[in-house]
Amino acid sequence: MSELLFPRGFRAATAAAAIKKVGRDDLALLVMPDGATAAALFTTNLFCAAPVQLSRQHLKDSRGHASALLLNSGCANAATGSLGASNAIDCVESIANALGVSALSVLVNSTGVIGTQLPMDRIAPLLAPLAKCACEADDAGSLEAYARAIMTTDTRPKMSTRVLQIGDIRIRLSGVAKGAGMIHPNMATMISVVTTDAQLSASELDMLLRDAADKSFHRISVDGDTSTNDSLFAFASGKAGRVDPELLRTALIEVCQELARMIVTDGEGFTRSMSVRVEGARTKEEATTVAKTVAQSLLVRCAVTGGDPNWGRIVAAAGRAGVRFDPSELRLYVGGIEIFAQGQPVVCDAQAVRAAFNGEHVAMILHLGATTGEVGDTNADEFLTSGLTEEYVRLNADYTT
Amino acid sequence: MSELLFPRGFRAATAAAAIKKVGRDDLALLVMPDGATAAALFTTNLFCAAPVQLSRQHLKDSRGHASALLLNSGCANAATGSLGASNAIDCVESIANALGVSALSVLVNSTGVIGTQLPMDRIAPLLAPLAKCACEADDAGSLEAYARAIMTTDTRPKMSTRVLQIGDIRIRLSGVAKGAGMIHPNMATMISVVTTDAQLSASELDMLLRDAADKSFHRISVDGDTSTNDSLFAFASGKAGRVDPELLRTALIEVCQELARMIVTDGEGFTRSMSVRVEGARTKEEATTVAKTVAQSLLVRCAVTGGDPNWGRIVAAAGRAGVRFDPSELRLYVGGIEIFAQGQPVVCDAQAVRAAFNGEHVAMILHLGATTGEVGDTNADEFLTSGLTEEYVRLNADYTT
Repeated sequence: MSELLFPRGFRAATAAAAIKKVGRDDLALLVMPDGATAAALFTTNLFCAAPVQLSRQHLKDSRGHASALLLNSGCANAATGSLGASNAIDCVESIANALGVSALSVLVNSTGVIGTQLPMDRIAPLLAPLAKCACEADDAGSLEAYARAIMTTDTRPKMSTRVLQIGDIRIRLSGVAKGAGMIHPNMATMISVVTTDAQLSASELDMLLRDAADKSFHRISVDGDTSTNDSLFAFASGKAGRVDPELLRTALIEVCQELARMIVTDGEGFTRSMSVRVEGARTKEEATTVAKTVAQSLLVRCAVTGGDPNWGRIVAAAGRAGVRFDPSELRLYVGGIEIFAQGQPVVCDAQAVRAAFNGEHVAMILHLGATTGEVGDTNADEFLTSGLTEEYVRLNADYTT
Repeated sequence: MSELLFPRGFRAATAAAAIKKVGRDDLALLVMPDGATAAALFTTNLFCAAPVQLSRQHLKDSRGHASALLLNSGCANAATGSLGASNAIDCVESIANALGVSALSVLVNSTGVIGTQLPMDRIAPLLAPLAKCACEADDAGSLEAYARAIMTTDTRPKMSTRVLQIGDIRIRLSGVAKGAGMIHPNMATMISVVTTDAQLSASELDMLLRDAADKSFHRISVDGDTSTNDSLFAFASGKAGRVDPELLRTALIEVCQELARMIVTDGEGFTRSMSVRVEGARTKEEATTVAKTVAQSLLVRCAVTGGDPNWGRIVAAAGRAGVRFDPSELRLYVGGIEIFAQGQPVVCDAQAVRAAFNGEHVAMILHLGATTGEVGDTNADEFLTSGLTEEYVRLNADYTT
């Protein structure tokens, strides 16, 4: 298999600034060609990090255009006050000067330890060489090197690509992500960067990105905490030409869903994934609420870890979701086996049920009975998460300073 | 210290029906005198257990009067369909017949495994003797024997009492509780029974009970799951005479708070408790939301277990609570030490901070800065929970069938 590269028009480079650890790349620069469009979704946490605040402002002021994105791992530059804010600005200005572009067109984000300052003495001297390296590279840059540079406690780089042939035009989509890693004192910081060489306006890219996020990153949960740095960026270089944006929708959703699954299955202490699909709700919102409540239930997640066919916890979590439904109409399927209906357990093959709870993935479907839930039923939603493990607690209770 | 007894007018008895385990009392009957009043709060889970549905109806039909309460441990009689419902009715009718009272005046609840039927062949023959034993007992009955009979995975019985001398009248209050215990396939089933010999109307008792629950049982969280059987019962025998109900308010709150603390500190895998107090919010509701979000954060609870002064997780949890406040106005105190203010860490004694995170109890105060938060500030709220431990996950992932 040949190395995965960014789509046409993008150039990337990485460098090692020893921000937290020596001897690994922890700076990643992505350079976009003139006219590239940009969109992004940022954390809704009130304590959003200094670089997130800056990038949000730049994206707004540039009306969805960007020349570069600088990321670093090892330090989140969050809860760092006015010094943190000026450090983020200094990084952006160095890159802008080196590239000869407006600072407004440079975006930035950080991931890692919160409450500590960026080691600017080590970072600053590397920024101009990094920009030069990206611009002078022969090819578009390695996706994997980029994905590795933004890892924190991730155990593997996360990448996903798609190629679409639309008439004469070949469109490429690539995504990288870093996931949930929280050794003291980080938080579940997610950063993902999706790139395409299709030609899209900023608003088309924004529309596609929001839809894809809604069906992927917004449908996973590892620990229910929203970090100060969560960001999803998308850039379109335009180098492959113009196609109907609708033709990219499915591929973009797939790339984001693949990255989201990678984040869940590389979560700290991961042993087994679980999905919760709710059908037959009165509204889509109610399906979302019930699915989210079951997916976040500690007791359900513990049962999944133990391979324990503990259906009582699943229906009880649904019953406390704050959504009105008739409990006697609820049907619960796990691994395709109906195990609860009409308010009581269904007599079924106990061995098959145990097997359904013991696979690599535990798939739960709850049908609330308010609609028929046939194909085309829109009052449904699904969340993806993992079993809660002792290892997760051990890692996150670990005193590491 | 002499044995703790129920207040005047109550009679209690326990028996061993081998519902789940042989050789321990698992049936508990409390008998009230004529004219006793009753109030109760029941789980809001849609999948409430058969006995909860029956008791809710009886309490409504009797307009807050009760002659007896039958509890059992070892089986929750939840998710048991029509057979479960008729078993609950059979239990109630047996007790009513034995006591010569209306079935409507008998309440019932169960705690333990869900999805299995009560072993009526073992329970039914014991009910008439149990009623006889309660009525013929010389004294009011032992609180501890009663508290032990309703235990599931609790490691110790939970009791609290108060005595008030109001003029010539001596009023007694007693409470027992069973707490969060969830070995397959139970849920965090809480049952508490509070009794007093004061003379109170049903509506007075109901009013006092709701206020006390709001300041105690509604302010603790072990795992965020609401069980199918959660119930808080209160009974007033009237035997000590009539006093102004307001004079009982504080004592009832104290009894409930003491029981609630006991439930948290006897939770599965318990090592260390934590409290989250939020002050200076724009409204009481916003204080509640922020306090609850921080108290339920897995990352904060893991940090507490590890004795890890991980303040970044605390402020980040507050920032994602969905409440608008100015992050630069937030002040965080742990163990009385100010550690975060003006958007960044406060320079303080690191050893003292570590000690504050390493005590038996970790006390967090977040001041949101929207009000002065002086004494008398009502825009404040507080939750009590515990660190999340590997042992908790181990116990709840354990496959025990």
